Amino acid sequence: MKNKYNNIKVIGFDADDTLWVNETYFREAEEQAGRLLSHYETPNKIDQELFKIEIKNLPTYGYGVKGFVLSMIELALELSNGTVSNQVIAEMLKIGKAMINKPIELLDGVEDVLKQLSKDYRLIVATKGDLLDQERKLQKSGLLKYFHHIEVLSEKHDINYKQLLKRLDIEPEAFLMVGNSLKSDILPLVSIGAQAIHVPFHTTWQHETVSKKEANGAEYKTVKSLTEILDFFSANK
Amino acid sequence: MKNKYNNIKVIGFDADDTLWVNETYFREAEEQAGRLLSHYETPNKIDQELFKIEIKNLPTYGYGVKGFVLSMIELALELSNGTVSNQVIAEMLKIGKAMINKPIELLDGVEDVLKQLSKDYRLIVATKGDLLDQERKLQKSGLLKYFHHIEVLSEKHDINYKQLLKRLDIEPEAFLMVGNSLKSDILPLVSIGAQAIHVPFHTTWQHETVSKKEANGAEYKTVKSLTEILDFFSANK
Repeated sequence: MKNKYNNIKVIGFDADDTLWVNETYFREAEEQAGRLLSHYETPNKIDQELFKIEIKNLPTYGYGVKGFVLSMIELALELSNGTVSNQVIAEMLKIGKAMINKPIELLDGVEDVLKQLSKDYRLIVATKGDLLDQERKLQKSGLLKYFHHIEVLSEKHDINYKQLLKRLDIEPEAFLMVGNSLKSDILPLVSIGAQAIHVPFHTTWQHETVSKKEANGAEYKTVKSLTEILDFFSANK
Repeated sequence: MKNKYNNIKVIGFDADDTLWVNETYFREAEEQAGRLLSHYETPNKIDQELFKIEIKNLPTYGYGVKGFVLSMIELALELSNGTVSNQVIAEMLKIGKAMINKPIELLDGVEDVLKQLSKDYRLIVATKGDLLDQERKLQKSGLLKYFHHIEVLSEKHDINYKQLLKRLDIEPEAFLMVGNSLKSDILPLVSIGAQAIHVPFHTTWQHETVSKKEANGAEYKTVKSLTEILDFFSANK
């Protein structure tokens, strides 16, 4: 353990579901969509169809609330065979605006961890999603002061991290990423020779899940809550 | 002239309507919206109301096609008093996807200018808008190879440019910005002590226009087409 983190100079944090609650709000919105469209299908089927449309639209819309709302409206038109009421569409627009304007709910211990680690390390945020949304959330979170750099990425593949580290002049061996998504925050880092700590959130979007096989052999730590990572670093001193 | 650009080391380019056509597609989409809603209002009134809704939603949705489509749908619900057909909504979703997937139409001389300037200067892109959209457009444009850095900003105020230059370790005096929007690409740069060259595009979104008074006294060059800026730099050598 000691050796493993000895070289680390920069620690990257994912934002949604690592620093604050996010996926929960999407789940709630999906449930609301289910209720709005309950006339046409079962909640389960609505969930599945919404996911299908989201994935189909992902290359076009990317991540974030706006694309989610557009997909939800598309679903409503489809499931209803073009007979859904204007009221339902209006409700969906409202759901989207409410999601964008939700207050930030920090996860347990986040501020403590950042405060401690920022004394000895350069901290950055590497998040996926809508640029304006993510900037606004960071602003509202009150956490901006702990970070040297904020990067909003359109994707989190190996190549995106490589480019980011190159641009910030960080050696992969000197970088540790902390996040809730195995697929986006952990495996790409392991693959480029950086370190990663997985802090699972209780809910994971289907698109972010990975099979046991994909994660097989990858070396990373898993902790139950963000505060646990402090132990590694105090043991490290 | 000679002295003015002697210190320049880095040249920043706006993207939409500076490197390639963009606003034209929004105008076309607005005309389509006008036809789709012609049942309820005159084209002129529809334009005005759409603009109002866009500006109202700007703090929530930000710039880009997705927010535009959501605003267009909101307008349809409002103007029709909740009676617009599903078909119209479906058409609006289609308009948005078509806008996002448009091929890139480079403006005259763009590639030449970038090729020439990239020999002697570091070139960067500083663009406002949707992260995924802008990255995709740059990819499709074939222009990526000329740029050292791409920055997608959620806003283009003085502070955003200041932070960008600081992060990239560029002195304002060593920076020249080139773009079509007085409000976003020119005035903020002049205000922070950098240089700016205005290349007007034939169409400007109402939100990007500035009054004569706001621009009063600001020192910047205006050229008719991008290729003209080469003259300043060859004269400079």
